[in-house]
Amino acid sequence: MEEYIVRPIGVVRSALKDPADAPKQGALTGQEAEIVVNPAYLSALEGLENRGKIIVICWMHHADRGLLKVHPRGQEDRPERGIFSTRSPHRPNPVSLHTVTLLSIDRNVLRVRGMDAVDGTPVVDIKPHSPELDG
Amino acid sequence: MEEYIVRPIGVVRSALKDPADAPKQGALTGQEAEIVVNPAYLSALEGLENRGKIIVICWMHHADRGLLKVHPRGQEDRPERGIFSTRSPHRPNPVSLHTVTLLSIDRNVLRVRGMDAVDGTPVVDIKPHSPELDG
Repeated sequence: MEEYIVRPIGVVRSALKDPADAPKQGALTGQEAEIVVNPAYLSALEGLENRGKIIVICWMHHADRGLLKVHPRGQEDRPERGIFSTRSPHRPNPVSLHTVTLLSIDRNVLRVRGMDAVDGTPVVDIKPHSPELDG
Repeated sequence: MEEYIVRPIGVVRSALKDPADAPKQGALTGQEAEIVVNPAYLSALEGLENRGKIIVICWMHHADRGLLKVHPRGQEDRPERGIFSTRSPHRPNPVSLHTVTLLSIDRNVLRVRGMDAVDGTPVVDIKPHSPELDG
């Protein structure tokens, strides 16, 4: 099959520096972070101001793309499961979904709450969250 | 910034053949489709059997990646908005999210309900839906 090229549109800036420190499903901890969007995409952000929840899609660049099974949440005592039945960052195409609360926008910088990706993680897309589509 | 390569793990098989026929936000129409996963990833599907809702992530290969603003839902009478505040398939990295109901799995073929991607759309990832993370 054909391959496609992902060109990041921004980057995560966070106090979480090391993947080992990132809480599993840390969305639930309320971690705040910034999404710094490449200014070339500034006009693509128009209309986001009044959104409560957005979906930030990242590329987990530290992922092991060859892994097909894992112990859920890294717990060795739990039986291995197929990658596609887990939210592990290790997957053939390490795309991650982060449903976060948009706190503010200052030009190309979005401040968000509930972000578990570490500092430096490439951002590939931003979408409004829709309870109807995503709930 | 660095670029990354997406290698599709499967393809959508659907009665929807033409992007013009695909209902906007057609997830809501209950369209059924098949996700045919490359057999190389068969073991990565283990554990999905008992999942009700899953998130299928596709690459919208017909997208215009240069578009930064659109009329929402293609309605010309509505003012243009930045791409990142819409669910348009046209975006810099045309990754799409489809929260669908998993009806059955037969080896590497998943039958799902609520899928608006057209026949032949590349699939890049499959994740279990989590009301806590995604709701």
